Amino acid sequence: MRNPLSDKVIKIKPSGIRKFFDIVSEMPEAISLGVGEPDFDTPWCVREEGIYSLERGRTFYTSNAGLLELRQAICEYMDRRFHIAYNPKTEAVLTVGGSEAIDMALRAMLNPGDEVIIPEPCYVSYVPCVELADGVPVTISLKNENEFRLTKEELENAITDKTKILILSYPNNPTGAIMEREDLEAIAEVIIKHDLYVISDEIYAELTYTSGHVSIASLPGMWERTIVVSGFSKAFAMTGWRLGYALGPAMIIEQMTKIHQFAIMCAPTTSQYAAIAAMKDCDRDVANMRESYDQRRRYLLNAFREMGLPCFEPKGAFYMFPCIKEFGMTSEEFATRLLQEKKLAVVPGDAFGECGEGFLRISYAYSLEELKTAIGRLQEFVEELRG
Amino acid sequence: MRNPLSDKVIKIKPSGIRKFFDIVSEMPEAISLGVGEPDFDTPWCVREEGIYSLERGRTFYTSNAGLLELRQAICEYMDRRFHIAYNPKTEAVLTVGGSEAIDMALRAMLNPGDEVIIPEPCYVSYVPCVELADGVPVTISLKNENEFRLTKEELENAITDKTKILILSYPNNPTGAIMEREDLEAIAEVIIKHDLYVISDEIYAELTYTSGHVSIASLPGMWERTIVVSGFSKAFAMTGWRLGYALGPAMIIEQMTKIHQFAIMCAPTTSQYAAIAAMKDCDRDVANMRESYDQRRRYLLNAFREMGLPCFEPKGAFYMFPCIKEFGMTSEEFATRLLQEKKLAVVPGDAFGECGEGFLRISYAYSLEELKTAIGRLQEFVEELRG
Repeated sequence: MRNPLSDKVIKIKPSGIRKFFDIVSEMPEAISLGVGEPDFDTPWCVREEGIYSLERGRTFYTSNAGLLELRQAICEYMDRRFHIAYNPKTEAVLTVGGSEAIDMALRAMLNPGDEVIIPEPCYVSYVPCVELADGVPVTISLKNENEFRLTKEELENAITDKTKILILSYPNNPTGAIMEREDLEAIAEVIIKHDLYVISDEIYAELTYTSGHVSIASLPGMWERTIVVSGFSKAFAMTGWRLGYALGPAMIIEQMTKIHQFAIMCAPTTSQYAAIAAMKDCDRDVANMRESYDQRRRYLLNAFREMGLPCFEPKGAFYMFPCIKEFGMTSEEFATRLLQEKKLAVVPGDAFGECGEGFLRISYAYSLEELKTAIGRLQEFVEELRG
Repeated sequence: MRNPLSDKVIKIKPSGIRKFFDIVSEMPEAISLGVGEPDFDTPWCVREEGIYSLERGRTFYTSNAGLLELRQAICEYMDRRFHIAYNPKTEAVLTVGGSEAIDMALRAMLNPGDEVIIPEPCYVSYVPCVELADGVPVTISLKNENEFRLTKEELENAITDKTKILILSYPNNPTGAIMEREDLEAIAEVIIKHDLYVISDEIYAELTYTSGHVSIASLPGMWERTIVVSGFSKAFAMTGWRLGYALGPAMIIEQMTKIHQFAIMCAPTTSQYAAIAAMKDCDRDVANMRESYDQRRRYLLNAFREMGLPCFEPKGAFYMFPCIKEFGMTSEEFATRLLQEKKLAVVPGDAFGECGEGFLRISYAYSLEELKTAIGRLQEFVEELRG
């Protein structure tokens, strides 16, 4: 029998996170700071709206782009929170999480050989989705000393005459880095000069702890060059609902919606009805969760300082990215031994790109109590290593 | 500014159904036999399970392939109903409706230039999804006189040395055709002889009215060459839940799951919990809905006979595909005038492929009462045309 598989797909590496969690899943006594999803249940007012829509029998397809009422609510929300204006009828499409939005944007925009600049460390989907869409990923190794921000010079150096898109992802998974207005202004200048586009993954936009999030789409000249990708998973603790969205110029959203129509049809209906409540009635829930994350963030930052584990102050998302180079082990060795010897799971930094080597991703989407137990184990491990 | 779009994507035609419904949506007084989704609400036992899972706060990601408990339930169901056995751990992946499963299968299997045979008339996604995956769609024009079954000869004539996959879709949307065991055996012989694969879209498998559905995967030598695509949308009236699945050889499912992981993450969690109830407790609900559809099917068949509108007897799905060639109009002209003059919406047959020209797709996923009103209008229109 002939080989059934696509050559391209075989070459794409499976996620390093997944490989690691296959091991974790076989150790039921292990505790984990590994997962990248909120530990909170979805706020009750959102679940209630989902329940109500099921009771009412709203179990049918929505339009391909999604419920207009939700698209309107999202556009109002984005304008209110981040000062970017979109027309809900033509400049917004609801997707199956932010993931689908990224995949669709790349499929809608890339020609074979187009280069996509991907600053790393970053979320594990960007490189494979670019490859699947026949683009060429060009990675930039961000630097710890820059607090993992993307600099103008780094971007300039990565641009060739084949560059088409920059994937920007702040607040960042896995580093917790943010980019502030002046950081983004420097990037915007380069983007406009080279006539590029940005896919801006802002799924953690509501989770910043020292200053409000700034969307690159809100900077002069950038709206027309940016697809903003976001969703409900992180700030609203709605991962399982699989609901995200893309906002951008109508000509791009139209093509994304066409692909979405054929490949997905529409985002889940119950999630769409529930998300209207998330956009309208959840500011306080989001603020409370943000406050909890911030408390944990400050706890960990302090714990790492006491342990002498170098870690820049992450100002967004719910991750810390401490450096473990002093121990002379790879991230994977460190994480594997930590798991085996102390039953504590964290993700090796190189799962998010080669330049993540020497770091760990530690999620604080766990209760303070869990964090304290985990930090106790990490501290023991570190002390034993230091002898 | 440079063009942001992919050349390939721009060339893909939007769905003809969609274009038609854009017109319908502006005529609130129109009644419709156009929509391809059940008119029933999702059975209560399924909705109840969804509600329960929301109350319990099961709002988190599942594993990428989906809840193992649901995969097990699906595999048991498929074995019980259609006598095909799959390992739930390695040979099943849960997707966002059948649509995503088709897209993922094509992305996992096609190399650029591989030919995919698509018998038409058929569901509107196959051709664009093949094009998006860089395959070459090779369509076959099925014949009314064969009751829109695919014949061995038609398949043989379409095969070249570039052919890799046949997309088989029975019970069929839009014709209502089915393929019986001996029809499939003839096709299987050709598939095996030419070393091809089949993506078998069996989303309407539970909706057959004269004999049980036979899956081509159950024929000797075909399991290893077939990806079965199915889901909950049609038989379980669960369109809005967006839940489907693919079953097949582990090496293909593994690659599909890898793409799914990066592009989608997992199918919606609430839908997955609810679907366990669909697999275990819904046989009676499905049987009741099937009985209703059959009643409507027989009503329409009779009505078309009385009207003298030629239509072969459809034995599956919930569509009729009458021929309107006698009126000397294109399907689109006929449907447009029917909508404007009698406020009745049906879908022009050519929306499902060129060979659908001269036919209409009439959905009977509507109550008998609605069908009677609609048929009254159609009859008036036909009589006026005949003078």
